[in-house]
Amino acid sequence: MRGQPGRSVTSKVLALLDAFSPTSPALTLSELARRAELPLSTVYRRAAELVEWGALERGDDGRYRVGLRLWEVGSLAPRGLGLRELALPVMEDLYEVTHENVQLAVRQGLELVFIERITGRDAVPVLTRVGGRFAMHATGVGLVLLAHAPVEVQEEVLAAPLERYTDLTITDPARLRRCLADVRRVGYAVSDRQVTMDALSVAAPIRASEGVLAAISLVVAHDRADPVVLAPLVQAAGRVLSRALGSPPRQPPGWTPSPPRGGTR
Amino acid sequence: MRGQPGRSVTSKVLALLDAFSPTSPALTLSELARRAELPLSTVYRRAAELVEWGALERGDDGRYRVGLRLWEVGSLAPRGLGLRELALPVMEDLYEVTHENVQLAVRQGLELVFIERITGRDAVPVLTRVGGRFAMHATGVGLVLLAHAPVEVQEEVLAAPLERYTDLTITDPARLRRCLADVRRVGYAVSDRQVTMDALSVAAPIRASEGVLAAISLVVAHDRADPVVLAPLVQAAGRVLSRALGSPPRQPPGWTPSPPRGGTR
Repeated sequence: MRGQPGRSVTSKVLALLDAFSPTSPALTLSELARRAELPLSTVYRRAAELVEWGALERGDDGRYRVGLRLWEVGSLAPRGLGLRELALPVMEDLYEVTHENVQLAVRQGLELVFIERITGRDAVPVLTRVGGRFAMHATGVGLVLLAHAPVEVQEEVLAAPLERYTDLTITDPARLRRCLADVRRVGYAVSDRQVTMDALSVAAPIRASEGVLAAISLVVAHDRADPVVLAPLVQAAGRVLSRALGSPPRQPPGWTPSPPRGGTR
Repeated sequence: MRGQPGRSVTSKVLALLDAFSPTSPALTLSELARRAELPLSTVYRRAAELVEWGALERGDDGRYRVGLRLWEVGSLAPRGLGLRELALPVMEDLYEVTHENVQLAVRQGLELVFIERITGRDAVPVLTRVGGRFAMHATGVGLVLLAHAPVEVQEEVLAAPLERYTDLTITDPARLRRCLADVRRVGYAVSDRQVTMDALSVAAPIRASEGVLAAISLVVAHDRADPVVLAPLVQAAGRVLSRALGSPPRQPPGWTPSPPRGGTR
């Protein structure tokens, strides 16, 4: 760490955790060693300690998996389950009135992480996984998170190649910049077939006192989507959650809220 | 580890994670040092590495919190989010037909951990938190998990004092032993006002090839609960999930399933 050539023990332990991914959730000892770039003997010893504590579990097949104890500790992350517990009732309301997909995401570095998802049974299929990452420039929640990210983050995303998911994905930095300005101005984002050709999402920000903490969206089939109907629904949900997080909702143009219950603006 | 008097670096790193709990999700450096029983300088150094990786996050208030990266890795635990992703659609179905609380739990050592929860808005209030722990001998899901735990686990729970939550909590080991035998025999558990005086829960096992992996329950207001109606609903949900996990459902007495789709018993 901090430019030292040798790796600290802490970084070796964390490298073992880094070895697991959604596409490789179960690893043999040698796979673990190869991915963590550590000698087998080191991995064997450290993994035994991690199993004893419960960070890893070892199955009958001899493979290591992430353990429930790590999930328990992870569940204490305020931006993870804490936010999710707060948001879930509001997400369920959105689901009950629309029966469409409802998503909740936060920014992690230059990407977004999906914190929660309610999948409509008859709704358009979505690619997302709770705990999974995605690029910010394509999805509705991502456009909201990027629009409200620190300027350095925006510039870093705009400077890197923007992956094309469909013919409608915005890959031109100048166009993306204008799109982000629009998102900030109107108070919501629309991703129309920018991730898959069958889906449209409408997303709104969830604000905490320190800024936009998360984004909430509806993802619907493109051919039955009407952003004019969806946007106020999603914005209202975002505002309810912003208020719950202690942030007075900002007044977007053309939207007249009911009088706030308590508190002043 | 393994009887060595000194603590390994791995165990020190894990002690820092252990310091966080649902009642203390944000800790100062000195609180972290006291809880982990480590010198301040050690904690400062290790915590900086954990922050750099994302296992911890440090807020404007200087306090450390569990970081989103740890939640991401924890979300790869097969008994955590993996199970939850599988179970959620079935839990949502249970919720849609009952509008009561639906819970999903697994055993961790001598306790249970709640993996998921759908809370009915107009349903009886429940004490549980996703990621939170509870004793097994009182709740419906706990009775199911305990009834199907290894004999050593059952004996250890039966040998320890059984906490009384209400006048109806089973605290007599001999009675609990009979209750667990009943749960195995009928294929579901009923906890009638054994956690709070207003609630009744009915729970059923979710089986994987290696045995009972989890339990699912409905928690309803005691005065409108009818276990005769609820038990088949919960059992059916448990069987759907058992089948999805690759375990042929066991035939409980008096229950005639529709012919299994593929596979033999």
